[in-house]
Amino acid sequence: MSPKDSFISAPREITTPSGPRREGQPAWNKQRASSMPVDRYLTFAQEVEDITLPDRTWPDKKIEVAPQWCAVDLRDGNQALIDPMSPARKHRMFELLVKMGFKEIEVGFPSASQTDFDFVREIIERDLIPEDVTIQVLVQAREHLIRRTFEACEGAKNVIVHFYNSTSKLQRRVVFRKDKSAIKQLATDAAELIKTIAADYPNTNWRWEYSPESFTGTELDFAVDVCNAVVDIMEATPENPMIINLPSTVEMITPNVYADSIEWMHRNFAKRDSIIMSLHPHNDRGEGVAAAELGYLAGADRIEGCLFGNGERTGNVDLVTLGLNMMTQGVDPQIDFTDIAGIRSTVEYCNQLRVPERHPYGGDLVFTAFSGSHQDAINKGMDALADSVRPGATNTDVTYEELRETTWEVPYLPIDPKDIGRDYEAVIRVNSQSGKGGVTYIMKTDHGIKMPRAMQPEFSSVVQAITDAEGGEVNSKQMWDVFNQEYLERTTPLEVTAFEIDNADSDDKDATVAATVIYNGKETQISGTGNGPIAAYANALEKLEIDFEVLEYSQHARSAGDDAEAACYIGADVNGMKMWGVGIAGSTTRASLRAMTSAVNRALS
Amino acid sequence: MSPKDSFISAPREITTPSGPRREGQPAWNKQRASSMPVDRYLTFAQEVEDITLPDRTWPDKKIEVAPQWCAVDLRDGNQALIDPMSPARKHRMFELLVKMGFKEIEVGFPSASQTDFDFVREIIERDLIPEDVTIQVLVQAREHLIRRTFEACEGAKNVIVHFYNSTSKLQRRVVFRKDKSAIKQLATDAAELIKTIAADYPNTNWRWEYSPESFTGTELDFAVDVCNAVVDIMEATPENPMIINLPSTVEMITPNVYADSIEWMHRNFAKRDSIIMSLHPHNDRGEGVAAAELGYLAGADRIEGCLFGNGERTGNVDLVTLGLNMMTQGVDPQIDFTDIAGIRSTVEYCNQLRVPERHPYGGDLVFTAFSGSHQDAINKGMDALADSVRPGATNTDVTYEELRETTWEVPYLPIDPKDIGRDYEAVIRVNSQSGKGGVTYIMKTDHGIKMPRAMQPEFSSVVQAITDAEGGEVNSKQMWDVFNQEYLERTTPLEVTAFEIDNADSDDKDATVAATVIYNGKETQISGTGNGPIAAYANALEKLEIDFEVLEYSQHARSAGDDAEAACYIGADVNGMKMWGVGIAGSTTRASLRAMTSAVNRALS
Repeated sequence: MSPKDSFISAPREITTPSGPRREGQPAWNKQRASSMPVDRYLTFAQEVEDITLPDRTWPDKKIEVAPQWCAVDLRDGNQALIDPMSPARKHRMFELLVKMGFKEIEVGFPSASQTDFDFVREIIERDLIPEDVTIQVLVQAREHLIRRTFEACEGAKNVIVHFYNSTSKLQRRVVFRKDKSAIKQLATDAAELIKTIAADYPNTNWRWEYSPESFTGTELDFAVDVCNAVVDIMEATPENPMIINLPSTVEMITPNVYADSIEWMHRNFAKRDSIIMSLHPHNDRGEGVAAAELGYLAGADRIEGCLFGNGERTGNVDLVTLGLNMMTQGVDPQIDFTDIAGIRSTVEYCNQLRVPERHPYGGDLVFTAFSGSHQDAINKGMDALADSVRPGATNTDVTYEELRETTWEVPYLPIDPKDIGRDYEAVIRVNSQSGKGGVTYIMKTDHGIKMPRAMQPEFSSVVQAITDAEGGEVNSKQMWDVFNQEYLERTTPLEVTAFEIDNADSDDKDATVAATVIYNGKETQISGTGNGPIAAYANALEKLEIDFEVLEYSQHARSAGDDAEAACYIGADVNGMKMWGVGIAGSTTRASLRAMTSAVNRALS
Repeated sequence: MSPKDSFISAPREITTPSGPRREGQPAWNKQRASSMPVDRYLTFAQEVEDITLPDRTWPDKKIEVAPQWCAVDLRDGNQALIDPMSPARKHRMFELLVKMGFKEIEVGFPSASQTDFDFVREIIERDLIPEDVTIQVLVQAREHLIRRTFEACEGAKNVIVHFYNSTSKLQRRVVFRKDKSAIKQLATDAAELIKTIAADYPNTNWRWEYSPESFTGTELDFAVDVCNAVVDIMEATPENPMIINLPSTVEMITPNVYADSIEWMHRNFAKRDSIIMSLHPHNDRGEGVAAAELGYLAGADRIEGCLFGNGERTGNVDLVTLGLNMMTQGVDPQIDFTDIAGIRSTVEYCNQLRVPERHPYGGDLVFTAFSGSHQDAINKGMDALADSVRPGATNTDVTYEELRETTWEVPYLPIDPKDIGRDYEAVIRVNSQSGKGGVTYIMKTDHGIKMPRAMQPEFSSVVQAITDAEGGEVNSKQMWDVFNQEYLERTTPLEVTAFEIDNADSDDKDATVAATVIYNGKETQISGTGNGPIAAYANALEKLEIDFEVLEYSQHARSAGDDAEAACYIGADVNGMKMWGVGIAGSTTRASLRAMTSAVNRALS
């Protein structure tokens, strides 16, 4: 067991007995019935109704423009926290949402919580709401709560009063014990009251939002009937539309059925042109993002959600994922995600919940490839991008400013991490699952070492021997240490303590090398000649009975701080053994000779 | 700032400048263009091709039976870990998957990693693979890797050899620099070789799986062409079908488009009846679950994924969510999730990654309601369920074994937590966002206190005063302490030190009460008579100039350990103040008189 195994320690054994084999299952499927009480659960059609829309049009549509967003972090998100936001945390969240560009922000449920009431008063009285931002407040369809809500909002310039009552089949039966007409009456009574009370506050630009809460558990004809009645009372018009919000309060079924229900509503509202149709998906089935996108295709105008999917139970739909999904398709989300790390840390502070490692766009691991083939593809993709900027360039040769002018197409990376303020550091990390691509990428990107193609498997296998033996990750610093030990620091059996080269660059004279070396512990003088320094050094090595033949040669400039160095790679046959050597030095010649010594030492040690 | 604010501390300020207002935006939408480089991104139609299937049938289908599952935690999951599984962790994962009922388990990539190779050898040589379980091994379409893979599997009874090569437009261009026919050749060469090598291992029941990797980035006609060629070479038949796996290696577009592409493949395979069509969704857009479900509706037979959605980057599709989504619709997933906590802790140990708080079905917070209206609805829903078992019963009166026979329908809880081995403890937690429903539920469930309806807002406001002032959660123990202080432990201004009741249960004589009390610090004797003990004590209280009128009365038996106690609630008018009092005692009579004292002390303190 590796030492890291103790981070999350081994749990007890579990046993889960399985039942009999299912009848009619194809021969290749050997699964058996589980022992779970599956019969306790009704299908969606049994529980609510069978929604079908054979002439649906949404699957042929595409998302081409951002919806109106409404961020509900301060209300639905806040209501789902173990530790609801303190005033300080509320302010940070509000400021963040404003800076990101949200123009509709649900700031609380002031009639239900004193903290919320006080916060709404404070942002109004301290004039913290920008001119073009509309605050939204939630309230149940009950008189004393509605009155308190208007008190909370007095003096604000733009306010959406969001009122709701649950309309679902289940809640009508077990919670309210009321029939449809009584439930509808709750909504219309509230609408009448709101209109009346609003008249006492003429200095605010009031807008209205109504939610048939638990919409996904409501029969569509009843939902549309209640909404139509509310729209009539509020006298919504095309010039002055009201918001009808259709929450997937509990996600109950696949997102295509939600989309069908949204398209059905879209077609069946009495005054569609006076309605801003809004979605509010939750994530109980892990499909909140899909529900929002398909529902938007189905005709919605507006989406409510929270940053990084905070919210009751499994969360509200994640506005970060929705926004950046649009960006990957060339659609401007109209919200700024250019500092995703800053957004994330503010959200984590306000919610006191961590964004998980695999959360799309924001998680620590979502731009990271550990597997060898992925790393190889990313490496090549980044180089192809660089090459499109300047033919022949690799990714370390070009700046982000240059890359920003290109079309982003890199395998396994749906978005350029730098476009949202992340860097490439995390893109490739190396462990036992990695291959030459990852090692090559890190050596190139972090250490300016551009290994020739034929050398990559050799060094990669050196790294993999370590990861296989020790487990865990080899980070960039560790990899550099391994590279040093393997190629640059070896002094046995051969150490060059002094040397001189003559005629290194001469066209008409042979080059000569004279060196003082320690070979197998014994100091010796050697010298040789050849048509260049490499040939001369190879000739000198013959004195030590080392037969050195250069098979491949590659070098490049490597910048380290202010100085440029040469890095040289020599693939050699040393006494019959094929081996790479690497040398780094201030001059190409010295780097070459060092690479030769490196190869000798690797072959003969 | 509350003390808890320091758990995740306040981050730096962020600024994200926004661009100009978008043209043609409706007046109610005040959003502006972001400053992000949106133009760098191509639409899916531009990047791959425009997939449309106007006569699609999948949106009218329903999931009625579980697919063949294949768990790839030990391969795709493992390849995505910072610290890949040690042998000990690999064994725990394998055992877990077997116990849960998975019959196809991808156990590694033995040709790419020595650890994987050794693990495969070990489970074969130690005979750890059950008869009805087929192991699956991944290999790239390259000769030396294929040979090594067969070596790894020698001696196993049932093996799926899963070979792949990337076929996507982008990878053909930047990674392989090969045209379509050369890429197809990679696949067919590998298929030929696998068939040839397999002949050397006649004692294993070999099955085949081919993945056109990066399927979602591949033009459909090319993908089907490659797959058809492979199916031909492998001589798949309806009796001996091969698996064609269509990975959403990178999730590139909305899940309806993936479903369209799956239905297109389903219709266009040359030998559909000889193919087990498999899905392998990733989660880059946060829509992996939806992609799997819609793709399954579109004709797939099989789904590959990982427990709790581990996997490269944003993860593979989560098999827990998929399975339990089916269960909520009355479909047996054929996998056992009855011990979700045990499954989760094993997965956390193996992956060394935590399952996040809001992860569907498994997260800490996904069955928790903090908001008042949700709590109220859950409370009523649970009572309605109990009432369906035994008319008049509330949820604390019935056992899980009884509830297990009912149809589960409770607002905001798509599944009975106990059906997957969780309990109701977490269902309702109380903080400043909560209301009487949550307080009532916890007092009833944890403490056997069934407050009468009219009393609930009173105690709830006592709790809310604390949460509003202090922030954070009030747990069950703290709530009980508050209840004690508020109702049960008060001794000022009135403390009863001794009392006697006569004729408490007499039909023909008046009851009398004689008590020694300390009132406002002064010991006094009081006595009274009435048609029952309550009336007699009220009469006695008149001696202290306390006018006591009973408005509401309620009592029930409360079991505490072996003893049954009486809990009594009296809503009273005390010198003109309306106030509740509570008493708990071994007899109903004593409990009633204590409740009266409680009301007096609350009114007059």
